[in-house]
Amino acid sequence: SRELFVLTYGALVAQLCKDYEKDEDVNTCLDRMGYAIGIRLIDDFLARSAVKRCRSYSETADMIAQVAFKMYLGVTPSVSCSSAAGNEFSLILDKNPLVDFVEELPAERASLCYCNLLCGVIRGALEMVHLAAEVTFLQDRLKGDAVTEIGITFLRKAEDRKHKR
Amino acid sequence: SRELFVLTYGALVAQLCKDYEKDEDVNTCLDRMGYAIGIRLIDDFLARSAVKRCRSYSETADMIAQVAFKMYLGVTPSVSCSSAAGNEFSLILDKNPLVDFVEELPAERASLCYCNLLCGVIRGALEMVHLAAEVTFLQDRLKGDAVTEIGITFLRKAEDRKHKR
Repeated sequence: SRELFVLTYGALVAQLCKDYEKDEDVNTCLDRMGYAIGIRLIDDFLARSAVKRCRSYSETADMIAQVAFKMYLGVTPSVSCSSAAGNEFSLILDKNPLVDFVEELPAERASLCYCNLLCGVIRGALEMVHLAAEVTFLQDRLKGDAVTEIGITFLRKAEDRKHKR
Repeated sequence: SRELFVLTYGALVAQLCKDYEKDEDVNTCLDRMGYAIGIRLIDDFLARSAVKRCRSYSETADMIAQVAFKMYLGVTPSVSCSSAAGNEFSLILDKNPLVDFVEELPAERASLCYCNLLCGVIRGALEMVHLAAEVTFLQDRLKGDAVTEIGITFLRKAEDRKHKR
């Protein structure tokens, strides 16, 4: 049952909102916490999913959506590739269980990425299988978008990373 | 899968340890957060468990252990009544999933009740079904005890409560 998790996550976000005035600082903190979780969660994921090594970014994105999200959040986002280069993907969530108890963001928290922990988790887990990636929310139903969309950009080479930064 | 929850809970406790120097303040904060969660979680619990009204404290304690703990943490504590008056109960956890990723408490956090959120959750949920109770950790494996024990004392009358305080 994930209700206790969802409510506990809400308590975490609320605490960070007390701690940090700026939404950007809360978002960064959630991402950083998620990263620390992701680098530990990957072992659990690999052990329990018994998946084989992915051979393409596309396969990796599908694995995140169909196995990891299903396993940890009980939902399966749809995946679309959003770049000709084949290294940018979107996970589209029609339903986001993490916000089950959230009505809407308060007006003074309009830039909060409430679920930003998830981006950090994905980034941390990918890094542990030697895949550098940037993970961010591109759309968020909490902000009035029609769906919630997480963007994953795989950074292929050191040059890619340098260029991105 | 509860690993994501357990790691997220760890991030919450770590954040509170950053925020508050004193273990007692962290414990209080976790209890307070748990209370806020408990008063919301009870609806989910009643809806999904479809349990009937308990007719005794003993039945209530069994329900918490056998239905609620099983539902939200995947474990079933054993229950013992520890007072002749029949209003004090212990939930004994041989295994506490919330500490799966915790090796031991750091020396400077010796008084931390790491799982204190649970006490608050139980207290909040009970209050919503009109049962006042005090809920505290009596033993904790993280502190070197042989088992983890949560004590629940049902406060029967206004006089009881006054007396306790």
